[in-house]
Formats: sequence, structure tokens, C-alpha cells
Amino acid sequence: MGSLKNKEEELEPVVEEAILYVNGIRKVLPDGLAHMTLLEYLRDIGLTGTKLGCGEGGCGACTVMVSHYDKNLKKCMHYAINACLAPLYSVEGMHVITVEGVGNRRHGLHPIQESLAQSHGSQCGFCTPGFIMSMYALLRSCQTPPSEELIEECLAGNLCRCTGYRPIVDAFRVFAKTNDVLYTDSSLSLQGGDSICPSTGKPCSCGSKSLSDRDTNKQSVTCGDRYEPVSYSEVDGSRYTDKELIFPPELLLRKSTYLKLSGFGGLKWYRPLRLQQVLELKMKYSDAKLLVGNTEDDGLEIGSAVKLSELLNFLRRIVKERGVDETYSCKAFIEQLKWFAGTQIKNVASVGGNICTASPISDLNPLWMAAGAKFQIINCKGNIRTVLAENFFLGYRKVDLTQGEILLSVFLPWTRSFEFVKEFKQAHRRDDDIALVNAGMRVHLEEKGEKWVISDASIVYGGVAPLSLSALKTKEFLIGKCWNQELLQDALKILQKDIIIKEDAPGGMVEFRKSLTLSFFFKFFLWVSHQMDGKKSVESIGLSHLSAIQSFHRPPVIGSQDYEVIKHGTAVGSPEVHLSARLQVTGEAEYTDDVPIPPSGLHAALILSRKAHARILSIDDSEAKASPGFAGIFLAKDVPGDNKIGPVVVDEELFATEFVTCVGQVIGVVVGDTHENAKLAARKVHIDYEELPAILSIQDAINAKSFHPNTEKCLGKGNVDLCFQSGQCDKILEGEVQVGGQEHFYLEPNSSLIWTMDCGNEVHMISSTQAPQKHQKYIAHVLDLPMSKVVCKTKRIGGGFGGKETRSAFLAAAASVPSYLLNRPVKITLDRDIDMMITGQRHSFLGKYKVGFTNEGKVLALDLEIYN
Amino acid sequence: MGSLKNKEEELEPVVEEAILYVNGIRKVLPDGLAHMTLLEYLRDIGLTGTKLGCGEGGCGACTVMVSHYDKNLKKCMHYAINACLAPLYSVEGMHVITVEGVGNRRHGLHPIQESLAQSHGSQCGFCTPGFIMSMYALLRSCQTPPSEELIEECLAGNLCRCTGYRPIVDAFRVFAKTNDVLYTDSSLSLQGGDSICPSTGKPCSCGSKSLSDRDTNKQSVTCGDRYEPVSYSEVDGSRYTDKELIFPPELLLRKSTYLKLSGFGGLKWYRPLRLQQVLELKMKYSDAKLLVGNTEDDGLEIGSAVKLSELLNFLRRIVKERGVDETYSCKAFIEQLKWFAGTQIKNVASVGGNICTASPISDLNPLWMAAGAKFQIINCKGNIRTVLAENFFLGYRKVDLTQGEILLSVFLPWTRSFEFVKEFKQAHRRDDDIALVNAGMRVHLEEKGEKWVISDASIVYGGVAPLSLSALKTKEFLIGKCWNQELLQDALKILQKDIIIKEDAPGGMVEFRKSLTLSFFFKFFLWVSHQMDGKKSVESIGLSHLSAIQSFHRPPVIGSQDYEVIKHGTAVGSPEVHLSARLQVTGEAEYTDDVPIPPSGLHAALILSRKAHARILSIDDSEAKASPGFAGIFLAKDVPGDNKIGPVVVDEELFATEFVTCVGQVIGVVVGDTHENAKLAARKVHIDYEELPAILSIQDAINAKSFHPNTEKCLGKGNVDLCFQSGQCDKILEGEVQVGGQEHFYLEPNSSLIWTMDCGNEVHMISSTQAPQKHQKYIAHVLDLPMSKVVCKTKRIGGGFGGKETRSAFLAAAASVPSYLLNRPVKITLDRDIDMMITGQRHSFLGKYKVGFTNEGKVLALDLEIYN
Repeated sequence: MGSLKNKEEELEPVVEEAILYVNGIRKVLPDGLAHMTLLEYLRDIGLTGTKLGCGEGGCGACTVMVSHYDKNLKKCMHYAINACLAPLYSVEGMHVITVEGVGNRRHGLHPIQESLAQSHGSQCGFCTPGFIMSMYALLRSCQTPPSEELIEECLAGNLCRCTGYRPIVDAFRVFAKTNDVLYTDSSLSLQGGDSICPSTGKPCSCGSKSLSDRDTNKQSVTCGDRYEPVSYSEVDGSRYTDKELIFPPELLLRKSTYLKLSGFGGLKWYRPLRLQQVLELKMKYSDAKLLVGNTEDDGLEIGSAVKLSELLNFLRRIVKERGVDETYSCKAFIEQLKWFAGTQIKNVASVGGNICTASPISDLNPLWMAAGAKFQIINCKGNIRTVLAENFFLGYRKVDLTQGEILLSVFLPWTRSFEFVKEFKQAHRRDDDIALVNAGMRVHLEEKGEKWVISDASIVYGGVAPLSLSALKTKEFLIGKCWNQELLQDALKILQKDIIIKEDAPGGMVEFRKSLTLSFFFKFFLWVSHQMDGKKSVESIGLSHLSAIQSFHRPPVIGSQDYEVIKHGTAVGSPEVHLSARLQVTGEAEYTDDVPIPPSGLHAALILSRKAHARILSIDDSEAKASPGFAGIFLAKDVPGDNKIGPVVVDEELFATEFVTCVGQVIGVVVGDTHENAKLAARKVHIDYEELPAILSIQDAINAKSFHPNTEKCLGKGNVDLCFQSGQCDKILEGEVQVGGQEHFYLEPNSSLIWTMDCGNEVHMISSTQAPQKHQKYIAHVLDLPMSKVVCKTKRIGGGFGGKETRSAFLAAAASVPSYLLNRPVKITLDRDIDMMITGQRHSFLGKYKVGFTNEGKVLALDLEIYN
Repeated sequence: MGSLKNKEEELEPVVEEAILYVNGIRKVLPDGLAHMTLLEYLRDIGLTGTKLGCGEGGCGACTVMVSHYDKNLKKCMHYAINACLAPLYSVEGMHVITVEGVGNRRHGLHPIQESLAQSHGSQCGFCTPGFIMSMYALLRSCQTPPSEELIEECLAGNLCRCTGYRPIVDAFRVFAKTNDVLYTDSSLSLQGGDSICPSTGKPCSCGSKSLSDRDTNKQSVTCGDRYEPVSYSEVDGSRYTDKELIFPPELLLRKSTYLKLSGFGGLKWYRPLRLQQVLELKMKYSDAKLLVGNTEDDGLEIGSAVKLSELLNFLRRIVKERGVDETYSCKAFIEQLKWFAGTQIKNVASVGGNICTASPISDLNPLWMAAGAKFQIINCKGNIRTVLAENFFLGYRKVDLTQGEILLSVFLPWTRSFEFVKEFKQAHRRDDDIALVNAGMRVHLEEKGEKWVISDASIVYGGVAPLSLSALKTKEFLIGKCWNQELLQDALKILQKDIIIKEDAPGGMVEFRKSLTLSFFFKFFLWVSHQMDGKKSVESIGLSHLSAIQSFHRPPVIGSQDYEVIKHGTAVGSPEVHLSARLQVTGEAEYTDDVPIPPSGLHAALILSRKAHARILSIDDSEAKASPGFAGIFLAKDVPGDNKIGPVVVDEELFATEFVTCVGQVIGVVVGDTHENAKLAARKVHIDYEELPAILSIQDAINAKSFHPNTEKCLGKGNVDLCFQSGQCDKILEGEVQVGGQEHFYLEPNSSLIWTMDCGNEVHMISSTQAPQKHQKYIAHVLDLPMSKVVCKTKRIGGGFGGKETRSAFLAAAASVPSYLLNRPVKITLDRDIDMMITGQRHSFLGKYKVGFTNEGKVLALDLEIYN
């Protein structure tokens, strides 16, 4: 640690200017923005090609590429990340490339963009820039063309609701190394195995040059503060690489700096350079969150700050280098990480962060526990202690770390001979989804005489309890037992009682999850048996069971579409690229939230009911009014026209007056100078409720005979009553079908920008809606204006699927009240969670059926009752 | 002066916070805005009801009311002023009321507004807020209803191009004290002589209360930083006065503060409180401009900083108080001030400023000279010297003031018995216009024996030379002569040689102006003779000459319009108030320049030819590019599409390439962050020309046989050649008629706001034009876009009169180039001088006619040639 003076210098280092390059342009980051995400920053500086889809790294619409120079590897590293999750300061000293930096119509599209447009890979277009950026980051990271599998893997963090993915994968497959691809454009074809240029996706000779060599040909042109992308317009020849945005020379030379910055609400942002700085900060701010790497003889020492994508790549290398027996744990981690999350998340999430957040549904924690990992914990005095992973998790989101302690590193031991570790996970969707149940399992077998006896075991589940749970009784049972069919049957019985999922456990589907815990063990038994196949006294598993132990492997998706192109000189019947495609792949297409809010514009946030059914007793807005940036609050009493609205029947209130009938019902609207300030103020509106009885399910409603008019639907076919009563039919089948409510999940959340003209004589809006005329009608109604004075425009929407009809008009009507009364532009853009909570869904259904038929299968009578 | 310490305190006083109230809202004025006008400030804070028409106080569209508390008079003074001329800091500590503060549609119109709308007093509406404010300031200044004359006088500084004024005067006449008015609305009638409420224009009992009493009922409501006008919606009862915007209590108590502020480009703004401070500042900044009140026994001592409106009111009082003989000079000043300028100008222009600016066409300086006024001049040491007015003016805009000296006061002596002073002025328009020729004349007659002999005289002319000019030879001739007809004839002969106007004198109309110098003296002779009427040996003037000596008096304008209203249940044929009237009288109607410029918006300024005909040799933009706020320069080479445009024939260049053919031809466009910065940078573009011969008049063009195709028009009626040659007609009359070019003078200068959507895929604009479709066509043409991608909207225009057809499209096309290429919103709004210089006019015409007719007057042949 050196002398005291040195120590002080380390702890209070010189804070340098915080900088960032965006699309080749140097930006100085002012202090005070620690609360801001990279996405907010990018959109604020006018780069609206990067979209806000979900705000939680789930959809990939916000994907950008981040590059930094790795001094150890001596090369530039390129990562796709979710800009919605990245704190702005986390990319300090890096180069961010957005879709605007990849190519545009005026200076030429990038081959990735061109191919996606040509292959009909964009429909609503809202997810499109994110797909471009994931693919772009992959190509810039590869020295040789990537495999098709790698391309699909890099897209796992990107959702598309329109295309069904086939045209997207088709568009990007041309950049893969195999040559048995479906070429959509002959100019984009390439020979298998050729070196592909990361700039163009085409074979060229630049691959041999090091990136930094290529980067020194500076090409970006600045015009004032604006970015002029380099030109890709010449699509042939070897000059491609000169057209790529280079890594900024300043960043090649720059040392990482100590950062000490602040943000709204007293937020502080530190980027310590040394462990001691981290520990001192942790001592000072013990509740602070840490936002973030060695091989030993006994196993792997993995730094807490190692990114999951680094871990994955490292494990893949280790598996190749080391003996098969030693790396069962490594392979289990590789498999689990494959389905863990999108690439964008793995590129920023750290090993330590994933552990310490202690999610009860963590995919990795059961594996750490089962694999016998050890966690190294350090405190501010530098003392290190070691805890077994299986003892680290203490309860819901609670771990064995005291104030001032941090997780320093993880030790993952090599597996011994006849020690097997396996991962399990079941989710709704294979890629990038939360597990229903997951597990990590390990057994160590020892040959004792003629038999293979279990000398050690660990069976750990996730998703079954508030924390990752060891099946301790099962473990106890297993140790010392012989590895055979009898063991399996007995163990399953014990396991059933060992892992109990309560009937009302969060997440539901309890029966299914219970069966998963058992079947995972069954699969583990089969898999271990298969590994031991041929060893004496180990029973071979039947051929019929072999499929159960294979890792899931999805071959690259190939789809084909057959249609006849009838040439008659017009576009009709011909597979034309749609007119917005080139705007969408370049991020140039403007969606509602991309339209700049005029000066003096305000942002709206809704005041929402937190009760399912209640009487509003009082509304206290005093705290909201004192909130920073507050500009106004508007309730039912402030509505200039009629507070009652509806598409056909006027049966709904714009702002609830006396009663609320669902959580998320709109009670009023608050406007503020920023989106964040408006939300903050809206949350500070305190409402006193008198709670009233609520009916929360269809069955409850049927029981209470609480029906909406015209919602009960009965279908009868045949002489129903007679048939069922008279015994005409040989057999009667009856039952129920339940379908849950379904979110439309348009990629673009609801958004409207509303402004007045001539001081409220006219109201204009741009709205993301399927029903501009309903906007006109609703807003004229609530503002008491003639419809001729209300204008709604919709240039395009980022998906609607029926979810942006009446509901978008309702939201715009709420925001029109402050805009009209204050004569200021008001923007309302819903966060994804609010959008899902309040806009309604495709209803849930309960169907009851009764069918009478003959032994021959002829249906004689059908009775169907549908409730929704 | 007290001790040194006191002196220092006086010279470096504490600078307090600079404040301003606007429509009842307190505004803190930051430092750095000394370059800004009140109009710019008001429009920047969103109060766009106040319009920029001419930018030089000539049209009144920018009229606002300024109120301050006069500690001497112990009352609030209300003035209408031109916001376009008022430096922002000049209204520090005052209350500014704009049209937005008078009334609006939501909270109720003010009776002035209601009456103007009801009387069809607005058409294009651009001048309308200015008329409202002039009338409002008058009513708030009057304790009793004003006379019709006073109402017309208060409107002299407001121009309207559409209405012909009659409906405006009709609308405001209802507020006058006479009761023989044309009531347009029975609810607005009032009894003659009743006390009128300044708030409502209706009789009420509030008149007796002092203003400060009434002002203490604070009524203005604030919502955030925005102004909520008080309500006028209840139009009956005595509660009106509670609804008027009060004078802010803070300003009632506040002492005037020393100001020391700065502005762009090193500008400094001082408001000294004491003369010594002024002198010290003048010493320090000897080139600085001073922007700004006693009766003695011998005459009037008038402070240099006295406003002209104060001088006018004061002189009117003096004339009532003092003997007739003493106040001939005073009366001459009163008459001259009446036609001097609009009320808005007189409310801010100072006596000293008007003198020292030494305009050769000054209306007052010839009078000061003729009246024998003396100017007191002080230097920074406090030394005072006195100069006779007639010796003060040394040359063009040059006066007898050394560095560090200022004009302290003016001494105007009382006239003696038989001393007569008279003013003269002839202009194109009676009110508020620059004189063609003006004059001040004085004679002092003494009885010598039987005759009246001239003992002293002074004959001074303006508008005939680079400075106000004394007719010294005439004066010399007059002194000692008898006052009779002979004198007149001889004096006229001398005067003709004494005052010489050169043939090429600026302003033209030399013959007319020469005759004016003589006829003024003739009128003076008649007038003095009439004053002396009845004195022995003075010849009476004939009855036929009496009209020449009467002061011009225009009776209040009364017009009437007869039409039959046929009631058939629809608006057709019925005198309906047009739909925008209420928007226009409240300033709520948005014109193009009122639309807020979106964030990242730029302002455009044109690079103009300074040569009539020249070849462009080189263009140097280096200095422009280094200019503050510069964002881009665009010349012909940058035009994405075709640089050649035209409405029918493509015969014009958007940006001149090789040749310019008129002064003001557009060579390119510069964009900057502000309007001022864009203009500054455009002026810094240096162009080298090779000058080419220019044809500057129609006659020169005819001589050079330089004709545009199809511009020579000949009309013949009858067998022209035969008739003129054969002598068929008894008489032949031939001659020429010349009509000069005529400016359209739409009140609203040309203005367009252009922006792109989807990164240039579409171009949108709001434009003040009579021809939106031509905008679409021109811009599609110069940007090489399909017309379907160009959208032009025109909600309303502030007058066009044919001047906003092709020319407005041309200007928008120029501004579309930077908007498209930078993908940023660009606003172009022309200053009035530029608008008049470059947009073309109604052509000048030269007509040559030859008519042959019989003695009976029957026209046999007509030959007409028209050139334009």
C-alpha cells in the first residue's frame, strides 16, 4: 500500500474531465447526470434512432455498440449493450455507436441495413435499429465471418413482434461463414469460409490488418456539433474499411480515470480504479450498489467484476484447454449462460452483481451452490474471508455480507474424476426468459467394490422458494447410496417432500413446477448414468430415454416462402420492399416519441389508482406541488368539457371522480418539466381510499352473478337440452378452458405529443395510434371543442395489434387537458410497466363446454358458454 | 458634491437586481441582454401577440404599454411605446402590459378588444394588437373619457394596410366623451361627459379613486411562470376595476436604481441616477450614445431628457397659463409636435436626443433655431457653456459638442410683443411622416413712425440641405424693412437664390421642394399680417387668402357604410364578425414568426449582392465561419437539386452563380443559432465583384433598347397612323406618365419555418404566403424531392397584397437548403429593410400617350405605349 501519502493519493485521485465519443464525436459529460441512462442521453442529443421499448433490457430496441480499448488484450473490444440499462457515466471514456453511426440514406446504407431492408426484415420498424446494432456489434467483434449459430445467439436479446424473425435471420445469414445460405441479394453473396470484412459483411483483404491500424484513417466529418456519418455509398472495392467509424485515437491513448460525479436527488457516481478505493467507498456508503478478473490449480478464480460474456468466452476456452473430467462445472455454466439473457445483458452484467442481487430465480446461483463454489469476501480493512456458495444465501434477496464488505471473487473448483455437474432450466421461452424452475446438480461417485457409490452430492433449485434452495434431505439420502434405478425411485419420493412449493407461491403453475423439480432430477439421473455408461454395474439407459439427456440444440432457423411473382408491370403482387424500410433500418424513421418537444413543452405523468375497487375519500396534492419541476395537476373537476367518455357507449370516466374500479385507473394527470419530474410529482399525490369488495377472477364474477351486459356468450348446436337429457348421445364430454389475459406488447409504448394553436383555439397532436379519429373525437369531447378544431396525425406506429385503438385515445385525452389549459405542448409517453398496467389487455376467457356424441364420433349436441 | 467618499459612492453605486413586470409577473432581467430590444424579449418569453412589423417605430405593430410610478406627480404614468425600439433595460423597474395582459378569449375580452372585433376592425390582424395597445394606453391615461381627436391622435403611430381605418375608428369612438357616436354595440354605449373607467371604457364610479388605491387589490394569478390574465368576463357592474391588471406594489415602493449591465459584443448599459454620473460615463465612453426635466422669467428651461410627449403636454399647459404674446414659440412647437411622430415615439424620444441626432430633416431643429433657443452644454468637470441653437449645427449629423460634453438643457425664450414664430411642414402623409421640407420662421416687428419695421428675423429650413439651414441673406434683407406686399415680393426673389436645392439632392422632387420653401414664406407673411390685422399701416389680407393661414385641422373621421341585410337564416349577406377576429384582437392568432422554433432550430440570413450588375469573382466565407453561432453557409454549389427556378419559366437562380443583376440578389444563405448571429455572419461573407454596366431606369432601358420579352405593351385605338398623319383630328395631345415602383407593404414581413421529418425524407414548412403550392413546387425542385414529400401550410398571413406569391416561395426555397442538408429546423424572417430591398415591388411604369380628337372632343385615335 506504500506510504500514507501514497495511500491518500490513491483514495483522492485527480478527477479528470469525463468524456464520451458518440458516433465519432467527442462529448464532454457534465457533472450532475448520474441519474441519467445512456439511452436518455442519446435521445436528448437528438439520436432518436435508438428506441425505448421496455426500459429493462428485455426487448433490445435500445441496443447500441460500445467500444473500448483493452490494454491487456491490446485490442478494441466491441459490445452490444442495452442503452436503457446503462448509466450514462458507465460508458465514460468509451465510444458509443448508434444506428445513426452505422449508415444512412444520404451517405449510403451499411450492408447490414441494406440486407435487412431488402429481405423485408422490418415491419413496424421500432425494433429494427436494435437488430441492426446487435448484428453490427457481432460483425465488428469477429475477425472471420460468424457462424449462423452465433448470429442467432447475438439476436437473442432482441424482440420483434411483427416479422416472426424469419426475414431478419434471412437478412443476416448472408454474413455467416457457411455458403449454403438463401441469398436474398446476389450482391451480398459470399464464399464460405472467406474472411469477412466487419465493415461490410463481404469478403475482403482487410481482415489481416489489426483494428488499430485501420482505425487510424480518420473518416468522420463534423459539422458544428452534429455528426456526419462516413459514406458507405460505394458498395464495391476494398475501400469499405475506410468508411467505418474509427475508434477515436484519443481513447486509444487515454488512461482510465477516477470518476466522482453526481446526479439528481443527491445521487453520487464513483468509478474507483483500485480495490482499496472501492472498499473505502463501501465503508462510506455502505448501502451503495456496486456496478461493475485467474486460473488456479484447484479451479478457477473469477473476479467479481468479470462480465458474464467474458466468463462465457473464458469458460469456452478453458473447456478446450483442460481435461474433460475437470470441466463438468464449466460446461454446465456455459450451457446455462447460453440461455441466461440477451447478449446485451451478458455484455454488461457482472458475475458478482448477478450473485449478490440474490434473485430467487437466479439461473447461476443454484449452479454455484451445486458446483461447490467458494466466495471470497473482503472488507475495508483488507481482511478476506471465504464462504461456501451454499451458505451465502440467507433469505429473500439477503446474502452473507456485512456493511463494508464486498464480494471480491468466486472460486469454482475443477470437477474430480466421476464428479458430474449439470444445469437445468425451464422457461416459457428458450432464449432470454425468466426460468419457471431451474437447478444445479452434482454427484461424486466412487467405486466401492462392485458398485458405484455416491460420496458427495448437491441438488439445488431456483424458482421454488424465496431463495435458491438446497434439497438437503435428498442430499443426505443420496450419500452412500449405490447409483441405480432403485436409488432413482427412492430419491424422487424424498425429493417430492423435500422441495415443497406452496399453493399460493408467486408465479403460479404450482403443479407444473413441482413436476419440473422431479423431472430435472430424473434427467440428471439419466445423464449421469449415460456418462458412466460402460462402467461395470452401471445400468445402461434405454434408447428411448436418450433424448432426455441431450442438451437442447436448435439448428439455425431456416424458413422459406413460396409465392408466384406475376409480372404485370406494377407493384401489385410483386415482393416490393416497403417504402419505410430504408428509413427504419437507418433509424431515420421518426416515431411519436422521437419528435422533438417544442420549447416550453411539458411532460405528463398519470395519477393512478392503487386499489382495485375503492371510494376516493380525499386527494392531497400539496407534496406534489412542491416537487421539483412541477407545472400543474389536473383532476376530474378541471376537465373543460365532459369527463365521461367512451368509444360507443359513454361509460368511462377520463379521470375517476368518486370510485375507482381497477388498479391503474387514471385519477388525474401531473405535468412537469421533465418526464422524471412529472412521474416523481405524480407519485407524491396522496389519495385516501375506502376500500370496497373486489371481484378479481371470472369465476368469482360468475359466483357473484356480476356480469357486464352482453359479455356472457352461449353457443348451442343441436337440440342441446333434449339431447343431453334424453340420453340420445352415447358419450358426453365436458370441461373448462381458461385463457389468461394477454398483453398486446406493441414494441413502442403509447405516446402522444399534444399542443395548442392560437392559444387553444385549435388542438393538434401526433399520436402513436391505430385510431386517430377516436383521438379527435375524445379530445373534442373532453375539451368541449368542435371536432374541426382537433387534429390528430399518425405518421407511423411501432406496433399496435389492436392495443392502440380506444386506449391510446384515452391517454391522449388525459394529456390534452393540461396542454389546453396551460397552452403548452405536453408529451405523454408511458413507461412499459405503466403501459402494461393501465391500458388493458386482450381479455382473459373462461370457456365451459359440453359435447354429446355417438360412439362413432358423431357430435349430436354442443353447448358452449364463454365468459370474458 | 460632498466629500470624496460620498462622490465615490455616487459614482460607483450599488447595482441592484434588474427587474421588470410583464403582465403582472415579476421577471428578473439577467445581465448580458443590453443588445436586446423589449420586443425581442417579449417574443422570446412567448408573448408573441406583440408583432415585429417594421423594426423602426414606424408601424406600431409592436406597441405595448409601459407604466411607471412618478414620484413627483405621485401617480402611475401609462405610455404606449414601440417595443421594437425600446432597449430591454430601458424599461427596468417598470410594468409592461402586452395585448396578452389586456384580455383573452378564455377569461374574457376587454371592451376595447370586443368592440374592435365587433366593428370588423381587423382583417389580416397583424396590426391589430398594436391598435389595441395604443387605445388601451390612452384609456388608462385618462381620468375622463378622451375626445375623439385624442383617440385619433393616439392611433397616429399605428398603420393598417387592410381596413382603411374607418372600422377601427368606429370601434374606438364608443369610448370617446361625446355621445353622438355610432354605437356598434348597444352594451358599449355611454353618456357624454360621464367619467369613463379606464379599465372598461364604460362609465363607472371608480374614477374618483386614486389609481394606487385600486391597484392594491391584487388580481393576477400565476401558474408556474405563466401569466393568467385577470377576468373581464363579467361585463356589467362596478367590479370592472378589480379585473384590471394592477400596478405592481413592489414598483410603487421601489427606488430607481443605478444600472450597470452588459450585452452582446461588448455592449454596456448604464442608467446613471445623477448628472455627475452621466458626465463621468461620458468622459469614459466619449462616443457613447445617451438614451434618455423648469420655467424661468425669460422663457422655458427644458431638460435635455424630457420626453417629447411631456414637452407637448407641458407646452399645452403653459399656453393656457401665460399671456398670448409670450407663447408664439410654444404654440409653434405644439403644432409641429402634433405631426411629428406617433404617440409611441413621442412617449420615449427625448428633447436632447432629437436635437443632437441632428437630422437634416428634423422637424424641431429649424424651430429651435428660428425661435432663438439657447442650448446649455456641460462637460465632465461641470463647466457649462451656452450656444445659440442657430450656431449649434455644424454639418451633416455634426453638432458643436466636444468629447465628454453633453447637452444639458434647452432654453426657449418667451416671445416679445409683436414677435411671431411659426412652424411649417409638408410631408406625403400628414401624421407620422418624414417632411419633404419643413421650416421655422420668426419676425419681430417694431413700430417706427407710421410703419412696422422688422427689427429681427430668422428663417430656417429643414430638408433642403445636409443640415437645418438658415436663410441668412433673406434675414439680412428683411431686417429694417417695412412689413408690406413689396417686402414679400422682394423677399421671395432673394429667398429663391438663398435656399438652393441641388438637382441631384437626396429625396428628389426638387422643383416641388423649391416651391415649398417659397410658399412657406408666403404663408408666414400672410399669417403675420393676419396677426397684425387692424394695426395701422398693415395691409389686410384678402378673404381668399385666409384659408392659407389656418392651421390644418382635421375633424374626427366619420364614415358610414350602407348595405341591406337580407335575413335568410344563413351568414350569407349578413355582416358577420369573421372567425379570426377574436383571435386577432387578443393577440392569440399565431402568425408564422410566432410559431416556436423547435429545439436545435437555426435562423437563416441571406447573403445579398451589393452590386446592381456584376460578375462574382470570389466568395470568401472564412470570417463568416468564425463568427459566433455560425452553423453553416450554403451557396449555389450546395443546392441538392436544380438551382434554376421560376413560377412558369425557369429563368431565375436560387443562388447567383456567376452574375448578379440587382442589388439584393440572393447569393447564398447563412444559418446561425440566433437571428442576430446569422445576420452578423452573413455580413462577414466577402464577395469580390467585377462591376458591369447597369441600366437603372426605364428610360435608360428604352435608350439602350434593352427589353425583356413581352414587357413592352402598345395599345392602339382607331386607325392610329392614318389619323395622326392625315390630319383628320383637329387636335393631338401627347405626353408621358411615370408611376414609380410601389412596395406592397404587407404588415408582416416574409417568414417561413422549415423542418425535415424522417431525416430529410419529408420537408415541412409553415410559411406566410399567398401561394403554398408554389412553395411545394420550388422546394421540391431545389431539393430534388418528389412534390409529395414537401408540405407547406399557411394558417394565416399578415397581409400579402400580391407581394407574397412567387417571392415568398423563393425565400422559403433558399432556407430549405440548410434545413434539408443539416436536418435541422430553419426559420427565415426578413427584416423590413431587407424585405423591401429584395422581394421586388409593384413595377414602376412609364406610359407614353398620344390622342387625336376633334374640336368637339371626339377621340379619333389613341396610341399608348407602356413600359415597365
